Amino acid sequence: MSDIRKAYVRPLDIKHGRVDMAHGAGGRAMAQLIEELFAKYLGNEYLAQGDDGALLPPPGEGRLVMATDAHVVSPLFFPGGDIGSLSVHGTINDVAVMGAKPLYLSAAFIVEEGFKLADLARIVQSMAAASLAAGVPVVTGDTKVVERGKGDGVFITTTGIGLVAPGRELSGRCARPGDAILVSGTLGDHGMAIMAERESLGFESPIVSDTAALHGLIEAMQDSGADIHVLRDPTRGGLATTLNEIARQSGVGMMLEEKCLPVNRAVSAACEFLGLDPLYVANEGKLVAICAERDAGKLLAAMCAHPLGEAAAIIGRVHQDEHHFVQMSTIFGGKRIVDWLSGEQLPRIC
Amino acid sequence: MSDIRKAYVRPLDIKHGRVDMAHGAGGRAMAQLIEELFAKYLGNEYLAQGDDGALLPPPGEGRLVMATDAHVVSPLFFPGGDIGSLSVHGTINDVAVMGAKPLYLSAAFIVEEGFKLADLARIVQSMAAASLAAGVPVVTGDTKVVERGKGDGVFITTTGIGLVAPGRELSGRCARPGDAILVSGTLGDHGMAIMAERESLGFESPIVSDTAALHGLIEAMQDSGADIHVLRDPTRGGLATTLNEIARQSGVGMMLEEKCLPVNRAVSAACEFLGLDPLYVANEGKLVAICAERDAGKLLAAMCAHPLGEAAAIIGRVHQDEHHFVQMSTIFGGKRIVDWLSGEQLPRIC
Repeated sequence: MSDIRKAYVRPLDIKHGRVDMAHGAGGRAMAQLIEELFAKYLGNEYLAQGDDGALLPPPGEGRLVMATDAHVVSPLFFPGGDIGSLSVHGTINDVAVMGAKPLYLSAAFIVEEGFKLADLARIVQSMAAASLAAGVPVVTGDTKVVERGKGDGVFITTTGIGLVAPGRELSGRCARPGDAILVSGTLGDHGMAIMAERESLGFESPIVSDTAALHGLIEAMQDSGADIHVLRDPTRGGLATTLNEIARQSGVGMMLEEKCLPVNRAVSAACEFLGLDPLYVANEGKLVAICAERDAGKLLAAMCAHPLGEAAAIIGRVHQDEHHFVQMSTIFGGKRIVDWLSGEQLPRIC
Repeated sequence: MSDIRKAYVRPLDIKHGRVDMAHGAGGRAMAQLIEELFAKYLGNEYLAQGDDGALLPPPGEGRLVMATDAHVVSPLFFPGGDIGSLSVHGTINDVAVMGAKPLYLSAAFIVEEGFKLADLARIVQSMAAASLAAGVPVVTGDTKVVERGKGDGVFITTTGIGLVAPGRELSGRCARPGDAILVSGTLGDHGMAIMAERESLGFESPIVSDTAALHGLIEAMQDSGADIHVLRDPTRGGLATTLNEIARQSGVGMMLEEKCLPVNRAVSAACEFLGLDPLYVANEGKLVAICAERDAGKLLAAMCAHPLGEAAAIIGRVHQDEHHFVQMSTIFGGKRIVDWLSGEQLPRIC
């Protein structure tokens, strides 16, 4: 819209400006916001089409995967990331744990009137960097503005599509008695980074979110040749909730070994301080894998060889259980049920 | 999760209950909300997979289209529809105007704490009815809850994917001098229905939103054999903004005939009363088509033969213009520039 900008409007004042209702109204102000902010940072051949959607190449052979996530994390900026990078990683991971190669993302912004353009620019730049690093472009988007007090800074909904190579089958329904349960690294880092930031807790060592795109790690795991039955990223509700979901979907029970669960010392201390259990705290760069028992060692080796899986561990086994309970052998030698998260532990964690 | 529900919780009290923070926390309350509300009404084989995304069949030959829309309409319920049906129609239309057959939708909900479950159920039912009528299933979703005062009832972001048959090419960049410009019906119905509801204006005849899925009409238009260059749905910013966007994308000018613009009498009266111009008021069930001049009659006939195109009209012509102006011959015999919407005319209209 260079012709329009030259003729009618001054460039956006990204340093001092704020979002107003006109930026979501569909007219010239919105076109300018799209051009000078979204397209500038996220730009690619698909966004550049400038239509109401993106026209994409034929995806190739295989089944499609579609996943969507609304991101409402508070605060918007936290150690290790922000809502921009998180909204890219979260949806890429949802696509990748289905066994798919993530291809494209869409992004829809709901911005509160009065939000600083500088903060919006910082978020979009972070999103662009995460998208570029992951090799998954944001091909289409939307922007809406709501009145002050009707939103909370910015919410970002991303949707991803991916392609599953023929013959691959991963689902929460595929866990079988005897299977091994692995995690790719330490538990609870993201949730505790958010909590520490939100509550202004001054822990000795800063806790950093683990937000990361896991499709590279998953690719390496699949290349190992291990017979993987289930992949899942334990976000809201943490590992405990994710395993309960899988146990329900597959109609099985699980037994975890508490001594095998990897938890960072700082996270462990912070959880104790706040009365939280790291098993229920959200992760944004970790995955759970369930595989045939005989392949557990091979899969663990592949995970440990990848930068995002260095602290991977085998943490338990699947067994038959008509009640679909997830249980844990504690470090004191007892057993306890690892129940569903029943209420709100950590709201707005992603 | 019947095992869980039986063992631990009472059914949701949809009649009297309200959404609380736990419904977005990823635990048992969220699983229950998904099962007893979202899955109950939107249920299909893909949602039933219960994974973080949907695994979909190979899409077939052709290019993909992806489009996304955040819906923040206020009020949530209005004559002719609600945010549920609107969020299905809006995204289907964005996919369809790219020349694609809409295949699947995702839906992400951001709900404000305290929102009535009865209203949420009404919205999800409306969404389900719209999805069923259009033949485009909601295959995956997400639910987040934000604290009271950090949202506004419910926001819904839908994303759609579709398939473009080989050889088809529709884009805002394809308008050519000499082309005819058509609209599929009356202008401004959606926006004025929202405004009348919002301002509690008691117009004599009620104004009803035109919200509708346009892919059937588009199919009929393509089957007519007319050489269609551009399709677009004139939503936010209305026809004027949409035509300015196309003029910019294609590098052309346009001349409209004011006497040919179809506007309902009630909308026209309401616009006059409120000092609005129907050219800038949003539509949610109308499209603009630009086609080769020689095919205009054939295309108009195909549109008029479809229930959603009965009031279709040829409203102008494309011409060469290095300034990319959209102009209009007025009923008084003069000419005026139909400029971009420059500020906020109608916030939160979709």
